[in-house]
This record gives sequence, C-alpha cells and structure tokens, in this order.
Amino acid sequence: MTPFFSSRWVEVPAGVREAPLDSGLPQGFRAAAVAAAIKPSGGLDLGLIVSDAPDTVSAARFTASGVLAAPVLVTRDRAELDRLRTVVVNSGNANAATGGRGMDAAAKMQGSAAMVSGVREDRVAVCSTGVIGVQLDGDKLTKGLVQLSSRLRPDGDAELAEAIMTTDAFEKRAVLDVDLPSGATVRLTAQAKGAGMIQPAFATMLCFVQTDAALEPETADLLLGVCVKRSFDRISVDGQLSTNDTAILQCSGASGVRIEPESDDELAFGQALDALLRQLALAIVRDGEGSKRVGRVVVRGGNEAGVERVARGVANSPLVKAALHGGDPNWGRIAQAIGGALPGTAPLAYDIAIEGEQVAVAGNALPFDVADLAQRVSRDEVEYVIGLPGDGAETEVFFSDLSHEYVTINADYTT
Amino acid sequence: MTPFFSSRWVEVPAGVREAPLDSGLPQGFRAAAVAAAIKPSGGLDLGLIVSDAPDTVSAARFTASGVLAAPVLVTRDRAELDRLRTVVVNSGNANAATGGRGMDAAAKMQGSAAMVSGVREDRVAVCSTGVIGVQLDGDKLTKGLVQLSSRLRPDGDAELAEAIMTTDAFEKRAVLDVDLPSGATVRLTAQAKGAGMIQPAFATMLCFVQTDAALEPETADLLLGVCVKRSFDRISVDGQLSTNDTAILQCSGASGVRIEPESDDELAFGQALDALLRQLALAIVRDGEGSKRVGRVVVRGGNEAGVERVARGVANSPLVKAALHGGDPNWGRIAQAIGGALPGTAPLAYDIAIEGEQVAVAGNALPFDVADLAQRVSRDEVEYVIGLPGDGAETEVFFSDLSHEYVTINADYTT
Repeated sequence: MTPFFSSRWVEVPAGVREAPLDSGLPQGFRAAAVAAAIKPSGGLDLGLIVSDAPDTVSAARFTASGVLAAPVLVTRDRAELDRLRTVVVNSGNANAATGGRGMDAAAKMQGSAAMVSGVREDRVAVCSTGVIGVQLDGDKLTKGLVQLSSRLRPDGDAELAEAIMTTDAFEKRAVLDVDLPSGATVRLTAQAKGAGMIQPAFATMLCFVQTDAALEPETADLLLGVCVKRSFDRISVDGQLSTNDTAILQCSGASGVRIEPESDDELAFGQALDALLRQLALAIVRDGEGSKRVGRVVVRGGNEAGVERVARGVANSPLVKAALHGGDPNWGRIAQAIGGALPGTAPLAYDIAIEGEQVAVAGNALPFDVADLAQRVSRDEVEYVIGLPGDGAETEVFFSDLSHEYVTINADYTT
Repeated sequence: MTPFFSSRWVEVPAGVREAPLDSGLPQGFRAAAVAAAIKPSGGLDLGLIVSDAPDTVSAARFTASGVLAAPVLVTRDRAELDRLRTVVVNSGNANAATGGRGMDAAAKMQGSAAMVSGVREDRVAVCSTGVIGVQLDGDKLTKGLVQLSSRLRPDGDAELAEAIMTTDAFEKRAVLDVDLPSGATVRLTAQAKGAGMIQPAFATMLCFVQTDAALEPETADLLLGVCVKRSFDRISVDGQLSTNDTAILQCSGASGVRIEPESDDELAFGQALDALLRQLALAIVRDGEGSKRVGRVVVRGGNEAGVERVARGVANSPLVKAALHGGDPNWGRIAQAIGGALPGTAPLAYDIAIEGEQVAVAGNALPFDVADLAQRVSRDEVEYVIGLPGDGAETEVFFSDLSHEYVTINADYTT
C-alpha cells in the first residue's frame, strides 16, 4: 500500500497511524454512494454520510467566492453548522448560477436526505460539484437517495470518495488512528476531491472529515478553521476560486473519548487533523491536471499583507509554474513575480533560495551551479524560499506546475 | 500592405493616415541599429534614436514593478524625462537583478550614447530587454555604439524596430501622418516590442514614439499618460509585470507645427496617439506566444475598484484564457472568475454577454444557441461584457488566450 503521508512538507505526529483503507469509518458513521445518472458517464455520483449519534458535533468552511452555488447557500443559511449529522453530495452538476430553481433543488436535496437518514433538515449539509449553469434534476436525486438509504454501511467511505470525483485522477482518502496523550485512541477519516480548482465547469474542492472523538462545537470549529487555513487555504493550481468549495468536520463522539479544550489531547488531535488536511491539500495540488511537480513557496519578512501577496504572486505566476513544469531553475521568473506583487517598492532587497541554494541576495544574482540546481528542481517537490526586508511575517503556498495537459483539458472542453 | 489599424476595438480618427512604412521618421529624428553580439543569435541587438532638435520635448512612463532593472533606475533618476533627445536600447539582456555592476553598466551605456549622439548625458534614456540576472558586457555596448554613430539616418526606424525584438513573432511599427484641424500635418511614428510580458527572462514591453510636432512638456506628459493608461495599462498576456517596461514619447518640433494646450489640434493629436498606442498594445497581446485570439473584457457597474478587479480577474484567469483558446463559449468560467474577484459578495447579481449574446442575467443562466455562439467565439477577436450591480464605473482589459505554445516556450526555456 502506498502510504498516505508522502510529502516532506507534512510533519506526521508521533501518535498518528495509517490504518488499512478498508477498515471503515469511525464509530457511529455510515456512508454509501449510488449512480443516479447525473454524471453522463453513469458512474457513482450521489453519496451520503450519516452520523447516527444524536449529539454529533460539527464544523464547516465554505468558499469565499462572490458567486456561491445553491448548495453552499442552503447549507450556510438553512443548516445548523455545528450540529450536522448528514452530508449529501452529488457530482456531475455544481448547481451554480441556477437561480431560484437551483435553490429549490438544493433545498429538496436537503429535505430528501433528511428523510432517508432520519434526521432533521437543519442537520443536513448539501454539496455539489460539476458543471455550472445547468439545472439539477431533482427526480434523479430523490430516486438515488431512496436507494442510498438501504446501502449505508460503516465502510461506505470508499464508494463515497469515488462518487465525489470528477476530473480527479486518483482517489483522495485517509483512514487514521490517533493515539492521544491520555492513552485513548480515536479514529479520523477523510474523503476529499479536487484536481485543483482548475476545471472550469468542474471546479470544486470538497473535503469530509469524520471522527468518533467527542468535541465541543467551539473546539471543532476552532480546529477545522485553523487546519483549513494551513491546508486548503494555502494551495493553488491556477488561482481560481470555486463556487462550491466546502469542508466539513463531523464528530460522532461514539468512541466515548472526549477531547477537552486546551488539553494535551486537543493539541494532539489538532496536530493529527492538521497533518491530514495538509496531505489532502497537497494531493489536490498534485492532481492538478497534467501536473508533474508540486512547488512550495515560503515567504519571510516584510509584513502580513506583503508576504501573502508575494506568495500568491509566485504560486499563481504562469511563468514560475511553467518553469516548475520544465524543471528549470531560472530564478528571474521568481524575481519578476516578486516585483509584480509589490509594485512601487523598488529597489527591493529580496533574497531567493531554490532547494536551499541561495541564488539572489538583496536583489543581486549570486553564482550557482546551474546543472546541479536543474537536477534538483526536476524532482517531485521543489521549494522556493523568498526573503523580504524586515522580519515581520511568514507564509507559504503550495502550487502545481503549468502543463500542456492543463491547456488541452481546458481548451478542448466544450459545453 | 497589411493595414496597421486592424482591430475593431480601435477607432481611427478621421485625420489619421497610414504612410508607407519605409517613408521614414518625423523630421528631426534619426535612428539606427547594429548587431553588438549581445543576443546569442547574432541579430540586431543595439539601437539608437536621436532627435537633432536641441529643444526636443519628451515624456516617459515605466513599469510599476517593485523589482526595477538598472536601465529603468538610471533613466528615471539620472535623466531629464521631459527633455530626452536620445534613446539607447539593447535586447538580449535585461540588465535586471544585476546590482551595482548593472547600475554601472547602464550609466556607462547612457554616457556612451550621449557621446556618440552629441547630447548631454541627462538627455539620454536607457532601455534593455532580455535575460534577467546576467551582467551586461559594457565593452560590446561601447563598440556597438561607436558603429551606430555613423549609421544614424532618417529611415532607421525599421532596423530599430527589429533590434528591440526578442521573442516577438512580428514587428510592431507604425508610420502615420496626422492632419490637424488647423490644416497642418504632422508625422507620428512608433516602434514597439512585446510578446506580452510573458517570456520569463525576456519579459518586457518597450514603446518609442516620435513626432515632429512641437508640444509643451506638460502636454506631452499628459497625452502620453492618458494614452498609456488606455493602452499598455489595459493589456495582459499572463498578468506578469516586467522589470523593464518603458514607453517614451519624443517631440522634435521640427515640423514647425505647434500643438497648443486645450486646442482642437491637441485633441486631434491626442486621439491619434491614443489610436496608435491602443493598436500597438493589441499587437502585443496578439503576439502572446502561441496566441490565436484576442479577448476584450468590458466591466460596467459597481465601483472603480470592483470593475478593475473583475476585469483583471477575468483577463488573467487561465480558465477563461484556455476557453478563449479553444473557442469555447462556456460562460461558467467567466462567472467563476467574477466570484473569485469579488469574494464575500454572494449572492452577486452579475450579467454576462459574450459577443452581444446575453448568457446570464442577475446571476442566472439564460438559454442561448450554443452552436451559434461557439462559432462566434472562434473568430479573431472575442468580446465579453460583464455587468455588476450599480452603475458607477466602467473599464476594459485586452488579453490573449492560453496556448500549448505558451507552455512549451516557458517550460522548455533553460538557463
């Protein structure tokens, strides 16, 4: 089995163990998926995750886009985000830019999922991913949900993960056991999708996380918020923001292990969640269509706004991304992206290191072994460290390269 | 002869006539270029433009990048920008990120050009375009400039335009005669380069404009400023900002025609300059490596900051650009780019029209003839009009598509 944790940029805490992928969801959870004929391919496209514990605690995060899909609006405005027991999700149709009819379809999806999973409507989150601007067929959804009700089972996470894939080249799923400092063990599982927010009409990142630990709503919200900020908020395939991005953490409490606020267990659980989401985020970047390599840009110095602008500017620069694709150590592209991100600051005393090799100091080129560095930037992961004047802030962004396949997929797509 | 004015987005004023391309610079100007062995190809790479009129008036605009090349710093800080008589320019080396030695090389270039053209050092502008982070060979420049002094001639603009090309696929040059309302005629010529600020180490847009009209320094500065804002400031190939961008307008006054401030002649001259720079800007976009089509996005409504963000967001969206490349009318990509540009504003009542076909109103899809629109977005120029709530502002950005060739050129470049 290929290990889930595969990046040098993810620190795996000591108590976190990868369990067999078929060993099932945490206690209290069931899941399933069916083919509801929403995807033209006829593959699995409708899934359900249900927590059977009445006092399930949850937390959620959504895309910041100004153009929100109907399922995001329905979940955000008509569900108790800290008490979500059911998640219903479809692929093949984003239910975005679909107006009032789209809102009705999302509300109906919430209602039907509540009915088949036996929970209140306001305990159901609705998610969609797929084409934008096409009405969702409510009848197909209802029929599919009826089928789903009898298929729910503790190891349904594999088919759920399959059902949320659109252009994903590989499944993004993890089953972890977390040994806490108190001696107890809890299970932590996740299913995610995303080939990097890069597919126009299939642009979405979804992530569902389950645990049988018992968390306070405030703790769940805090931990998910912090971990999303360090994972899904720090990746870019093409700088494009989806209308449908959603991340949901559900805590059934069925293990009987309670994670107290500000305890060592909370810290350990938070570190496990952090490692899980960072590795999933990196998997999404790696899955950017045609992607060969993952880059990490770390920016230090200046101030919060400055490091953020530079990190995003470098990560989203098509020149930098094309260089990453070609395994080219040409740092002029990095310098150009820094300058573009901080207009009006010249002369700017920036430093650049690529894979530990200092190539520019205070805005000036340093001699380096081009052949050696070219070899090092041709590996799977490439790290760029940028220094700005001052020592105020630090941030990082993970990004994919820009490939011919990206252009092919996005140019040849036709409605 | 292919006409210079070829875009429907450039309105050519009545008094503007295209003169034969070999009919020479405006009165008072001479130019020339030589091969100084800076470009590895051995092609023309060093050029000189000289105004022989002692009271020449000029104006200049530079890149806003925080990382400025030495020639930009030298010109900005050590030349009288409203009295420039000589422009010296090399290709093959950007003299950027070259530190103190680079500043010395740019200053030496300024001094040598002053000597061979017989003007004061502070009347000389220095421009470079080419690789970043490599020292410029001062001896080659000096030798080349000595050769240039005897080659300067009134029709040297053709070889000058050739000498500033790097990855440009075609020459960008115009020779215009402008009939003014007062009955006088002045000549207006320009040489530009730029394949869209898209080449990593060859990233630069340069534009040199000459006229034999006599303008006040304030008028020259005002007109260049306004026209650059409506041309080179409104284009994007890949959202990347060069370290070397420079635009210079020189007015020799040798025609004896004086353009008075706030006169009808000023208006007519300004309109001619506007049309000239807009068409040159469009030529740069069209030359974006591998570019097949030019897009124009117009955004109306909202406020100044909002329309600017949306226009840039759409123009720089790799999804929108790939769709433009593929001739795909999929407007979901436009909606997605709008949402990404205006985070936190959902639900946003945006309108989208493509080539006059309304595809979304108030955030909702409208039915349209997909085959018909697909045909229309497969033409040379494609126009997107976006409406935002409110009626406060309007802007436009011209942009290239995203092609396989872009990736090839930028991935396979090696230092």
